[in-house]
Amino acid sequence: MNATVQAPVTSLASQLRANDRLADGRTPLPRQFWYIAGLARDFGRKPLERTLLGQSLVFYRSTQGRPVALMNRCPHRSYPLAHGQLEGDILRCGYHGLAFAPDGRCTEIPSQETVPRGICTRSYPVAERGPFVWIWMGDDPADADESAIPDTNWLESPDWSHVTSYLFLRANYVYLHENLLDLSHFTYLHPTTLGTPEYARTPFDVQVQGDVVRITRHVAACDVPPIYSRTGIAGKMSRRTVSEFISPAMHHASAVMSDLAPAPGARRDFTIYITHFATPETQDTTHYWFAFARDFALGDAEVDEYMKSSALTAFNEDRHALEEIARIYRGEPGAPGAEIHVRSDGAGVAARRILRRLAGQ
Amino acid sequence: MNATVQAPVTSLASQLRANDRLADGRTPLPRQFWYIAGLARDFGRKPLERTLLGQSLVFYRSTQGRPVALMNRCPHRSYPLAHGQLEGDILRCGYHGLAFAPDGRCTEIPSQETVPRGICTRSYPVAERGPFVWIWMGDDPADADESAIPDTNWLESPDWSHVTSYLFLRANYVYLHENLLDLSHFTYLHPTTLGTPEYARTPFDVQVQGDVVRITRHVAACDVPPIYSRTGIAGKMSRRTVSEFISPAMHHASAVMSDLAPAPGARRDFTIYITHFATPETQDTTHYWFAFARDFALGDAEVDEYMKSSALTAFNEDRHALEEIARIYRGEPGAPGAEIHVRSDGAGVAARRILRRLAGQ
Amino acid sequence: MNATVQAPVTSLASQLRANDRLADGRTPLPRQFWYIAGLARDFGRKPLERTLLGQSLVFYRSTQGRPVALMNRCPHRSYPLAHGQLEGDILRCGYHGLAFAPDGRCTEIPSQETVPRGICTRSYPVAERGPFVWIWMGDDPADADESAIPDTNWLESPDWSHVTSYLFLRANYVYLHENLLDLSHFTYLHPTTLGTPEYARTPFDVQVQGDVVRITRHVAACDVPPIYSRTGIAGKMSRRTVSEFISPAMHHASAVMSDLAPAPGARRDFTIYITHFATPETQDTTHYWFAFARDFALGDAEVDEYMKSSALTAFNEDRHALEEIARIYRGEPGAPGAEIHVRSDGAGVAARRILRRLAGQ
Repeated sequence: MNATVQAPVTSLASQLRANDRLADGRTPLPRQFWYIAGLARDFGRKPLERTLLGQSLVFYRSTQGRPVALMNRCPHRSYPLAHGQLEGDILRCGYHGLAFAPDGRCTEIPSQETVPRGICTRSYPVAERGPFVWIWMGDDPADADESAIPDTNWLESPDWSHVTSYLFLRANYVYLHENLLDLSHFTYLHPTTLGTPEYARTPFDVQVQGDVVRITRHVAACDVPPIYSRTGIAGKMSRRTVSEFISPAMHHASAVMSDLAPAPGARRDFTIYITHFATPETQDTTHYWFAFARDFALGDAEVDEYMKSSALTAFNEDRHALEEIARIYRGEPGAPGAEIHVRSDGAGVAARRILRRLAGQ
Repeated sequence: MNATVQAPVTSLASQLRANDRLADGRTPLPRQFWYIAGLARDFGRKPLERTLLGQSLVFYRSTQGRPVALMNRCPHRSYPLAHGQLEGDILRCGYHGLAFAPDGRCTEIPSQETVPRGICTRSYPVAERGPFVWIWMGDDPADADESAIPDTNWLESPDWSHVTSYLFLRANYVYLHENLLDLSHFTYLHPTTLGTPEYARTPFDVQVQGDVVRITRHVAACDVPPIYSRTGIAGKMSRRTVSEFISPAMHHASAVMSDLAPAPGARRDFTIYITHFATPETQDTTHYWFAFARDFALGDAEVDEYMKSSALTAFNEDRHALEEIARIYRGEPGAPGAEIHVRSDGAGVAARRILRRLAGQ
Repeated sequence: MNATVQAPVTSLASQLRANDRLADGRTPLPRQFWYIAGLARDFGRKPLERTLLGQSLVFYRSTQGRPVALMNRCPHRSYPLAHGQLEGDILRCGYHGLAFAPDGRCTEIPSQETVPRGICTRSYPVAERGPFVWIWMGDDPADADESAIPDTNWLESPDWSHVTSYLFLRANYVYLHENLLDLSHFTYLHPTTLGTPEYARTPFDVQVQGDVVRITRHVAACDVPPIYSRTGIAGKMSRRTVSEFISPAMHHASAVMSDLAPAPGARRDFTIYITHFATPETQDTTHYWFAFARDFALGDAEVDEYMKSSALTAFNEDRHALEEIARIYRGEPGAPGAEIHVRSDGAGVAARRILRRLAGQ
């Protein structure tokens, strides 16, 4: 099914009734998806503790360099395995020395000769893709299908350069997705970074295709937005952007800027991919990684640094806004159900309806 | 009805039964009253966030200087309006640019042409009186009647000088009123500031008149209490004090000191008005403003400073005591219901009975 | 009844079913026991506030030097009596001046002539024993029987030297007892302090005798463990240790080291008593005092200092482990019920079964 989303109804009463079909901060976290566990460089031979989807986990790399994710709790006395010691591929608990293999099986109990059948900690499927490690925390590990990991091939390609960064968000992940699908806040929340007047005025199209929500926008002629101004792109451009809600874990935006009057033999198109990865830490906090990739100015460290710091500046504005809203929600728990929607909310509302369904509600 | 309050019954069992008719820290906050929102000088052209009666509010002054109070929550995505920008009398939300008039009506939604009927944030009636701004947060703004604002005309009169100050209290407002109606703690909690031995020994009369509780006390001859000793008053005086619980928002005390042997042609009477304003921030925290006014030593900045710092010292002793009691209550939630009363509690108990009734319980 | 504890059953299912008969962090605190209130030197003529078994208390010493423990709450307006003033043996509340005798009886209400019968704060039986003060907080003070205070005569004897110290533990007291009865964690949690390889390999015997759990272990020949190495003991020794869970308040361990080849006329046996005192502050926090006593190197301040700092180093490792487990429990409240037991847990499991019964469950 492929449907262009219509402007939302304007009857307040019917809008408010519809709010209870949208995911909000209390909706259960959808577990049957691959999420980013962290940057590949986060994980090494020193056990690392990190909480994802409300579960405390311990990560390490095997002697072959393969990432391993275990429940961070010894089944014996619940001591965090992250305080343990690696012996080859085995993680030994720092309290009583129980040893665990990468598949979670207990291989040794020092105080007795045998290990009773069934003693284990949980192991989670993980997969490394370019600069990121993904994890699958669904109920049954047998359901983990690596082909369901969203495509991010450009982050592994020599034809692209990218930078990655991270923000910790004290807000539920649903509101990050809604924020990413909302182009109408650029002018007000990001006046000096992402917002350009021409862009704000341009109409956009929203389509829902299965569980994907897509916004497309074409600006016939505009200045290069400030965030790209030091990358070497200059002059009047057309700009075509596509923003997609891909899964609870990922949002992808592509921007193709085309020089309207390229010099003879000069490059015409410049493409930027901005990929946002949301992994709920808990119901109320979110790990937020993002990658900025480009098919030009390859390997230019100065452009890398500029894109990274510009993105951090802009996304910190979003982080602050979402955390301030979370603060208001804490003081007025009924507020989300009373919120009204405006025309530009179509994409976000569609994604929140999907997120509620994906959470099994 | 005008009744002199009798000494409390001394049967412990009947006292404890009566405790559940007294307001305590869990009693709902009475909303149908004017409360102080802040000092007039707190509010200007920069939006200011403040929580009153559990509701986060945003305050600003219109271009004409009139104070405006709105619910600090955009009805669209709950972003705090206090982060917004003023455009004339209009407050524009900092997230998506929705614009609100001083009456709370939404006047513009940037991403669409029209504003659907009914989109608004709540506006609260406010009124400026001398150094203070009052607010009415009852259920129906139509019930806000400015004639119900307690009289504080002396704070606007050229015949009086006053100082104002503020304390933030981590305790429920009921206990502040009880503290203010209790004269028997001066000797123990305020030995170096408010307490004088003669004053402590003097009998007092308590009267309940409608919803007002009044304590009167007359000391035939006493020394000027320390807090007034640098105001120019000296010698043996008679002292007549009247303390009144006026409303959940206000307590007023007047002290008239009369020189028992004035020099020929010298002034005989010196009047001081101490007005306390309690505005619950939440069920467990209280904004506490107070004003010290006098009809002598007018315009004397040194006397101003002395009265202000003396009052802060003494009232900080009360603040500390009430916060320590609140801490004990947190550890023993059943404690309030087990408290016993002594003879000097008559006025406080009467006010707590009134506060419970005013809360609709 | 005196039964040697068998190795735990190895069926996981039956183990998990049995978990609900063991005390854990949610089990009510057993109140009908004497607990340590503090070091004797903690208490003097300045009222001291301390929370024990969830109750805020105030301690002081009478003019005769006898320790007094009262509920830290004036029955009038719940002001903490710890802010009060001592007048001889009387503690006067700092808010309204009500006066209380060491037995809790109110002896004066300044604002009235008489004290109604029955006005009091609760007084708790206390008893001083050597360097410690014990308290009995059971429901009926008449049940307090000083003969039930565990024997610690060596802490008062000239034939022994001892040091005492204190740790504050952000975990439930049950887990401290289990930790103290568990010898198999020395090698892993205390590799540089308490753990010696010979000791770890030595079998031990666990016996349950009434409500006492006893572990005995005899090492035929071993090096002196690091923690005793600077006390003057050297050479190959046999080592006999007995660890006993005595009550919810106390765990006692004795270690007798016997020189296998003493020089002619030289001492053969060296005894060390390590006594651990657990007093729940709240359900989730524990006061942890301990005493290290020895019958050799008497009065040697350097040995004192070394034993104290060695004990603090080792016991801080336990403290950290128990607090980390408590953190995991906060994130996964169901974890305790899912824990499996290993052979070396016999003593701890026996004590947890007793603690649950002593809590009346």
